[in-house]
Amino acid sequence: MGLEEERKKVTFCVENLTRFLYAQILPDVSFERIRELKDKILKIPDLNYTLERYHDTREDALNRGIRQGLAMRAIFQKENCTESERRMVMGFFPEITAAVLQYDFFMPAFNLQASEEQKAQYKEKLDNLEIIGCYAQTELGHGSNVRGIETQAIYDNQRDEFIMNSPTVTSHKWWIGGLGVSCSHALVVAKLIMNQQDMGPHTFFVPIRDMRTHEPLPGITVGDIGPKMGNPCADNGFLRFDNYRVPKSVMLTRFARINDKGEYEILDPNALKVLYSSLVRARVNLSRDAWHYPTIAATIAIRYSLVREQFPDPENPQRERKLLDYQIQRSKLFTVLAKIYAIVFVRAVLTEKYNESERRMKNMDGSLLGELHALSSLCKGFITASAIECIEVCRRCCGGHGYSMYSGIPHLYASYLPSATYDGDNSILILQSARYMTNIIKKIHKGEPIPDKYVFLANPIPHLSGDQNPASPSFHQACFQAISYVSLNNLAKREAQFLKNGMKKEKIWTEILQIEGIEAAETFFHTSVHEDFIKGLSLITDPNAKQAIEYLRQIYAITQLDKYAGILINLGASPNVIDKMKDVLLEAFDKTRDNAIGLIEAFEKPDEMLCSVLGKRDGNVYESMLFAAKHLNPINKSSVYPGIQKYLRPKL
Amino acid sequence: MGLEEERKKVTFCVENLTRFLYAQILPDVSFERIRELKDKILKIPDLNYTLERYHDTREDALNRGIRQGLAMRAIFQKENCTESERRMVMGFFPEITAAVLQYDFFMPAFNLQASEEQKAQYKEKLDNLEIIGCYAQTELGHGSNVRGIETQAIYDNQRDEFIMNSPTVTSHKWWIGGLGVSCSHALVVAKLIMNQQDMGPHTFFVPIRDMRTHEPLPGITVGDIGPKMGNPCADNGFLRFDNYRVPKSVMLTRFARINDKGEYEILDPNALKVLYSSLVRARVNLSRDAWHYPTIAATIAIRYSLVREQFPDPENPQRERKLLDYQIQRSKLFTVLAKIYAIVFVRAVLTEKYNESERRMKNMDGSLLGELHALSSLCKGFITASAIECIEVCRRCCGGHGYSMYSGIPHLYASYLPSATYDGDNSILILQSARYMTNIIKKIHKGEPIPDKYVFLANPIPHLSGDQNPASPSFHQACFQAISYVSLNNLAKREAQFLKNGMKKEKIWTEILQIEGIEAAETFFHTSVHEDFIKGLSLITDPNAKQAIEYLRQIYAITQLDKYAGILINLGASPNVIDKMKDVLLEAFDKTRDNAIGLIEAFEKPDEMLCSVLGKRDGNVYESMLFAAKHLNPINKSSVYPGIQKYLRPKL
Repeated sequence: MGLEEERKKVTFCVENLTRFLYAQILPDVSFERIRELKDKILKIPDLNYTLERYHDTREDALNRGIRQGLAMRAIFQKENCTESERRMVMGFFPEITAAVLQYDFFMPAFNLQASEEQKAQYKEKLDNLEIIGCYAQTELGHGSNVRGIETQAIYDNQRDEFIMNSPTVTSHKWWIGGLGVSCSHALVVAKLIMNQQDMGPHTFFVPIRDMRTHEPLPGITVGDIGPKMGNPCADNGFLRFDNYRVPKSVMLTRFARINDKGEYEILDPNALKVLYSSLVRARVNLSRDAWHYPTIAATIAIRYSLVREQFPDPENPQRERKLLDYQIQRSKLFTVLAKIYAIVFVRAVLTEKYNESERRMKNMDGSLLGELHALSSLCKGFITASAIECIEVCRRCCGGHGYSMYSGIPHLYASYLPSATYDGDNSILILQSARYMTNIIKKIHKGEPIPDKYVFLANPIPHLSGDQNPASPSFHQACFQAISYVSLNNLAKREAQFLKNGMKKEKIWTEILQIEGIEAAETFFHTSVHEDFIKGLSLITDPNAKQAIEYLRQIYAITQLDKYAGILINLGASPNVIDKMKDVLLEAFDKTRDNAIGLIEAFEKPDEMLCSVLGKRDGNVYESMLFAAKHLNPINKSSVYPGIQKYLRPKL
Repeated sequence: MGLEEERKKVTFCVENLTRFLYAQILPDVSFERIRELKDKILKIPDLNYTLERYHDTREDALNRGIRQGLAMRAIFQKENCTESERRMVMGFFPEITAAVLQYDFFMPAFNLQASEEQKAQYKEKLDNLEIIGCYAQTELGHGSNVRGIETQAIYDNQRDEFIMNSPTVTSHKWWIGGLGVSCSHALVVAKLIMNQQDMGPHTFFVPIRDMRTHEPLPGITVGDIGPKMGNPCADNGFLRFDNYRVPKSVMLTRFARINDKGEYEILDPNALKVLYSSLVRARVNLSRDAWHYPTIAATIAIRYSLVREQFPDPENPQRERKLLDYQIQRSKLFTVLAKIYAIVFVRAVLTEKYNESERRMKNMDGSLLGELHALSSLCKGFITASAIECIEVCRRCCGGHGYSMYSGIPHLYASYLPSATYDGDNSILILQSARYMTNIIKKIHKGEPIPDKYVFLANPIPHLSGDQNPASPSFHQACFQAISYVSLNNLAKREAQFLKNGMKKEKIWTEILQIEGIEAAETFFHTSVHEDFIKGLSLITDPNAKQAIEYLRQIYAITQLDKYAGILINLGASPNVIDKMKDVLLEAFDKTRDNAIGLIEAFEKPDEMLCSVLGKRDGNVYESMLFAAKHLNPINKSSVYPGIQKYLRPKL
């Protein structure tokens, strides 16, 4: 049975689900506009992928990235794209390039810290890539810890200039995206030093390469840091300053400046609040974008599992069974599917909260920032890790063939992987949230107000011994809340004990409570995600689609609750209901079998984006594999591989 | 504090531990011989790695693999290596090449199935790589299921020849290691067809390429299947036969032949037993070799964590803390360390069992095969998966720098990854073991004898309510046994129920009990590993080393038991002892802090094998990174990257 027949089994209208999903994912771009842009993108060769990319040398990949950046600029300008549309176009082909970093990362950072005059001065040149900038914060020796940055910008009041210096090996700027070969300018985070006094980190927009020749300027050592596990198109670079002199005007002066008298002057006391808000933005975006890669991987794996057959069917020994008819394959792939839907629903809630915070920030009201920072750090930590895992599960679900680059999954995995580390190592971020949560517990004890998401912690612990419907959203939510309640209260109690014993807070949170902190934060994370899932479900109008996604909710809830079974029983859940939840789970896997292809194809990832021999819409797996190996693979160019003639045969 | 000072803190003699470990790992090679071979290898450039490998194109990698194969042949011949020594040399630089496959995979398969005459005919040519063979079983459409193989060898009794054919797209041989560009011959598994009758799969040793020109022979289509996630040196290939005629002598005839009258004749009825034994051998080897890659990764990550500093030390704010002084880093890396030691101890037990089985097989006594098959499948499934995870944990523990190829960990991960899939997909193998275990339960019910490892299942369920020492090996073992007891008995009961309801066994094990089967098998796996760990510990004579590794045992036991906390309480463990186990765990992490470098350096992985800027013995992390980026990275060859001139600047 081919994929077309499989599609006929789906119980809901896939196109309607697509509309619903994109209303969640991109609420400020109309569905018609999404389709229009997509159609246009698919006609621009430099924006599309072909299987040949898997043969790229690093140089090929860098060149492809440059051409892709130029094609992006063209469509942005021609279509006059809004910021949301730009992010959609960039997300469409999820590869990091200097141009993507320019639009998505550098320009927001620049615009945040530049004065109005500075913004006006550079806007056009940045927008059309005439100036390519990079955001140079991380150093060889310091990543997460901004205060440890060593690069110096020494103010010379005689000449009204800065002298930039990299005083140590560890002070080399490192990992800076776009710096390696592309950028002309860098937004450098450096310690401002005035009269031998360290004024703390500031940002300086300095030229790096000659605008005419692209040669590095005197006093600058710059280059690419070398090959990475993925993201070959990205030119992550290093940078060293050696008494490099720049005019005073390179300092970004929205928040502070050195005035004409050579004195340091604060212009806007909201600097910390605004920078904090930009940090939150980055983490919100990483959580929001996490649906993308696993959706591509799952499209490939689910289609392949409906084509690939293995071992005779016990009911019909003449035929072989499809992979998706094995329970273990279902359990793996449908758990991925459930997580993808969970991420989409979390995305919608996070976006709403973020937009509200942005509205308040217009009046410099940072009242939502604390909550949003904790929530986005928590989500970034767990969601990116979960998305990485989902991609790898999908790859292994394609068996041996998933290891071929042509399968399309390895490069997704390798390129998405660093999201667990950049913009804050996941463990560090989750621990920040855990500490926020113990403060919530303290506020509850003091009777102070707390954000909505945490109100259940102020109520009595949910009773699990009453109505126990093993399939119901409300019972599952009560379970999550009860577990989270116990874990967070324990954590707060343990912290209080250690503080009482005279231990310093920093010591507690580096040496004693890190493991428990992460475990407790995870219980709250699931409680929050499951709440968002229920909310998302309530918005679906088609009853068949709703039912199909309700099974995914059950899968999400029960697979997560499983590891807390012991605690749940201790909290009053009957062992019987825990066993019954397992039956509910198995039934949810079975019920999802025929809808799986509709649930994943609703995301409408086109073949060009999958770039996979295993996942094409037409299901022509084996012909595609054979074609790629025989006709595209450069190793087969000559009938005898040259290295055999050169190295092997003379030695025989 | 540099690494040398860290080394002084170790409480035991590292060299003595090294001797102990290699006595476990390679019991039949003396320690002096291991060191001697190692020293010699380190002097042969073609056998050693340099950072330049991370810039290799696929072609560079293939050529490197060829040269490495020739260098291996030279040292094997010069040193007159035993099989164990060969495996040691090959394991030293863990990269799959055609030559490694020749010695480690092809020759055992060939020798197993060839007649004495055939063996004698080819021995010398195979040994010196004059003939390079490959084992061609897997097809595009069939991997795990050998019975589904479609390639045909049709016996033509007129001409006393076979006509080899690949009748479908899916019947292309695929993934065959060494076939892509290197091999001259292939050991092809094909259906033997005589008088239109399918005689089942047989093996045929057929020439593929011209021995003089290396050109593919007429009737053969052969090539490399394309780029993979890792293992770029390996030339996995495809092969298609088109009425390819070969003489009758190509059939391997240890077990059966076509006699002079053109009749099929069985020569040795032990074929199945012997083939089964070779399957077991492959799985035993995969489990045994699994210590290797994570040991390299952990050497890198632990050294780096003793160099890299991050955030000020709360006790001494002028200094920064080393990564290894964070609880979360300890918990991650020491759990890896515990798993590495567990694999080593399992390896020793598995080797003993395997050798005993081989001794019996000499008299065609296959009485140990069933048990060994179940145990090796179980171990292969869980241990390779666990080793993969360990490598990735180590990579993430290196923060952002772990993503650089120069860190040395990404290529390990990518190259070891397929071990989860080849020689049997892990899920499938574990399910085979689960089914074996339900049969053990049935045997117990019938009072039949069972292997030692399972005897605890025949005894009463261990009491957990008596002596509960949260740190003791015997209490931990009782916990594992109790969990395993309950899980396996439940599984057997569930299977019996479904059988009673008239369901077919094949249906039960594909649609109903796969998830529970894997979960139950995992509980037995941990019970077995922990038993082997205790046994291994008992062999250590140095009390300080023993204590250090006892902490690793605690870490292994408690991190694994953690997820069963609920069940343990239901089985009579007090909630209090479960909490205390957490304290024991945290203490074990702390106690391992100063010994970690000794525990990992005892494996003596030299810098040449690590090929890492982060993990060098001298701890010169940052200088090495800078050197590699500045002086080795080919992207920095010219001061302006050519692609910028070619693509970007004309469009500005």
